[in-house]
Amino acid sequence: MLQYPGFDFKILHRDGKTSARIGRLTTPHGTIETPNYIFCGTKATVKSLSPAQVKEARTDIILANTYHLMLQPGADLVEKMGGLHKFMQWDGPMLTDSGGFQVFSMGHGYVADEIKGRRKSHDNKSLLEISEQGTVFRSYVDGQKIKLTPESAMDIQKKLGADLLMQFDECTPYHATKDYTARSMEMSMRWGDRCLAEFERGHNGKQAVYGIVQGGVHADLRRISAEYTADRPFFGTAIGGCLGGTDEEMHTTVAASMPFVNPSRPVHFLGIGRIKDVFTFVRLGIDTFDCVIPTRLARHGTAFLKGVKGETVNLMNARYRDDPTPLDPENDIPASRDFSKAYIHHLLKAGELLAPQLIAQHNVATFNRLMREVRAAIKKGTLDKLEKEWLP
Amino acid sequence: MLQYPGFDFKILHRDGKTSARIGRLTTPHGTIETPNYIFCGTKATVKSLSPAQVKEARTDIILANTYHLMLQPGADLVEKMGGLHKFMQWDGPMLTDSGGFQVFSMGHGYVADEIKGRRKSHDNKSLLEISEQGTVFRSYVDGQKIKLTPESAMDIQKKLGADLLMQFDECTPYHATKDYTARSMEMSMRWGDRCLAEFERGHNGKQAVYGIVQGGVHADLRRISAEYTADRPFFGTAIGGCLGGTDEEMHTTVAASMPFVNPSRPVHFLGIGRIKDVFTFVRLGIDTFDCVIPTRLARHGTAFLKGVKGETVNLMNARYRDDPTPLDPENDIPASRDFSKAYIHHLLKAGELLAPQLIAQHNVATFNRLMREVRAAIKKGTLDKLEKEWLP
Repeated sequence: MLQYPGFDFKILHRDGKTSARIGRLTTPHGTIETPNYIFCGTKATVKSLSPAQVKEARTDIILANTYHLMLQPGADLVEKMGGLHKFMQWDGPMLTDSGGFQVFSMGHGYVADEIKGRRKSHDNKSLLEISEQGTVFRSYVDGQKIKLTPESAMDIQKKLGADLLMQFDECTPYHATKDYTARSMEMSMRWGDRCLAEFERGHNGKQAVYGIVQGGVHADLRRISAEYTADRPFFGTAIGGCLGGTDEEMHTTVAASMPFVNPSRPVHFLGIGRIKDVFTFVRLGIDTFDCVIPTRLARHGTAFLKGVKGETVNLMNARYRDDPTPLDPENDIPASRDFSKAYIHHLLKAGELLAPQLIAQHNVATFNRLMREVRAAIKKGTLDKLEKEWLP
Repeated sequence: MLQYPGFDFKILHRDGKTSARIGRLTTPHGTIETPNYIFCGTKATVKSLSPAQVKEARTDIILANTYHLMLQPGADLVEKMGGLHKFMQWDGPMLTDSGGFQVFSMGHGYVADEIKGRRKSHDNKSLLEISEQGTVFRSYVDGQKIKLTPESAMDIQKKLGADLLMQFDECTPYHATKDYTARSMEMSMRWGDRCLAEFERGHNGKQAVYGIVQGGVHADLRRISAEYTADRPFFGTAIGGCLGGTDEEMHTTVAASMPFVNPSRPVHFLGIGRIKDVFTFVRLGIDTFDCVIPTRLARHGTAFLKGVKGETVNLMNARYRDDPTPLDPENDIPASRDFSKAYIHHLLKAGELLAPQLIAQHNVATFNRLMREVRAAIKKGTLDKLEKEWLP
C-alpha cells in the first residue's frame, strides 16, 4: 500500500470542548504546527512579496496553483529549472492544488463566488468538455485547447515538486442539482483512485497526496465522499467544493463531513480563511486553511487588524489621511510597526507599489500571528476568550 | 553670511588625468562618499521598494520631489507627520528638488524629453502663468490652481525636511530661443537670491541649499549662470536645464559650466544617470547623479547589467524563458543572486508585482556597485579600464 515515508502527522493536543486540535505536520521541506494558514503563491509568487518578506512575516507554508503554472510557464519548464521550490526560492513546505478548481470555476460560472454563495452565472466558454476521462478547456494565456485528467494533474504536480498534492476533482457549483452533484462526486471518487494509481507509479517519496471531500451542501453526499477519502491511502483530507451561501450553511456542510474523515490525517479547508472562519472551523477539527484574501485585499488597501469590527480597515479611507499610528506594532515587522497609516494612505492614493507590498506583508504577518495565538489558546483552552479579542 | 554648520564637503582625492574627484559629503543624516548616485523616491517612496530593500541594495542617499509631494499629501501633512525622513522611514541623507522642473516640464511640453533631445511638443495647459513673482499651475491631482514661488518652494522644502534643498528655477526647453533662455536664466538667478533670503529666515541648521546652473546649450550663458552660483552662499551646485540633444552636445554644455562653478562645493547633475553618463561626467567633476531610470526601467522588465552592450537587457525577451542564471551574483543581494532570469521572465509575463520589485532592487544595487567601483577606480587611476569592463 501507498506510504509516505518523508511525511508525518501527529496530533499533540486536543481541545476539551470542541474538535480543535494541535498537530505536527512533517514534510521533506520542514515541520509545521497546526492549525496553520497556507498562503497563496498562485503563479509561483505570494503576490506583492519576496520570499524573504514572506518569511519575515513568519510564514510556515505556502501553496501554488497547478492550473496557472501549467499554462505559464508550464510544468516542464518548472521541472527543468529544478522544481517549484528552487524556481520561486521558497525552501519551506509547499502545497499544490490539482487545477480542477480553476478549470471548473471558469466553466460553471465562477465557483469561487458560488462557494461563498454569491450567485452569479457567467457564460464562460473556457470549459469545453467534462467526461469520465477528464476535462478539456481553453487556455486563458494563448487560447490553446488543454486536456487535464487525473493522470496529467498528478504528472504536472510531480513535475512542480511541491510537498503536498491534491487529487483531481470536479468542483460542482451551488446551482447544480443534487443529482448532478452526486454523479459528479462519484466521478471525483473514481478520479481519486486514478490519481492514487498514477501517483504510485514512480513517485519519489518526497510528495504526498490529499483526497478531496465533495458532495455540495448535501450531508448524505458529504458523508459518502468523506468515507471514500478515509478508506483510500491518501496522506491528508481536503474539504472542497460548494459549501453553501451563508456562514450557517458552510458550518453545516463542514460539520456533516468531519465525523467521517480519517481522524488521524491532516484536514485542509480549501479556499476559505477569513479570521472568523479560522475560529469557526478549527473548532470542527480543520488543521490548515488557505485563502487569497490576505494578499488580494491588500491590493485594494484593506488591512486585517486584530480587534476591529469586521476584521479589516480600508486604508484608502480619508480618516487615515493624518493618522500617525502604525498598523500593529505587535506584529513586530517593519510593515506593521514602522510606517504610519497616513503614509500607507498616501501610497495608496499615489498608486505606489509599496502600498500593496506593505499591506500584504502586514496581512500575512497578522494571519500568522492569529494562527500562533489560536494554537496557544487551544493548548490553554482559551479559544473563546481569544475569539472575543480578535472579533469584538 | 549664510552658513551650513551641520554640513561639510571635503575633496579627498583628485584624478591625475581628468577632473574626476573623490569627496566626502556630510549631512545631518550621515556622510557619504562621492561620486555617488541619488535614487528617486519621487512620491516619498523609491518605486517598488521598501526602505529596507533600498538599504539592502547599499544605497547611501535618495531624493524626493517637491512638486509631487506638495500636491499630495501636501507639505503641511508631511511636516505634521514628523518630516519626510520619518514619514517614509529613510534615515539617511536626502535631497529634495524645488518643484520647478516638473512645473515647467508640464508647461513647456515635456522638458524631460527636451533635455535628452527627444523633440516632442505637447500642448499641456497645466502651466498657467510664469512671471517674475513665480508660477501658477494646475494640480494634476485635483485641478486646483497652485502658486509656486521661490519663497514657497523653500518653505515647502523646509517642511519636507530633507538635508539638501534646491533653489527654485525655470527649466527652459530645448526649443526655446537663446533670448528666452537668457532672460529666463537671469530670472532664475534673481529667484536664487530670493530662495537664499527665504531660506535664511528661520532655517534650523539641518538643511543646505544648492544653486542651479541654467543657460540651455549656450556656453556663454552657462558661464554666467555658473559664476552666479559660485558667487552666492549656496552649499552646493547643481547642473540643470536643457543640455542638448546628443551625448556630444550634453558633454559640451556641462564642460562649459564646470570651470566656473565653485570648485570646493559638491556638484550635482540633475536628472541624468545612465551608466555611460556616470563615466562621462565624473571625469568632468560631477559628484552626484540622479535619474529615475533604475526603477522606471525595472517596471518595464529592463535590468542594468555590468558588461552588456547598451547597459541593459530586457527580461521580457523570450530568450530568457529558460535561462537558469541569476541577474548578477556579484551584487550579493537575493534579487540579483538567487532568482533565475527564467523566473523573473515568468513573473513579468504573469504581471506579478514581484517582477518590478526584484528588478528595481537589482538595478539600484547595480548602480550602487557601479559607484563603488568608480570611486575605487578614481583612487587607483583606472577609470578607463573600469569603463571598458562596464561598457564593452
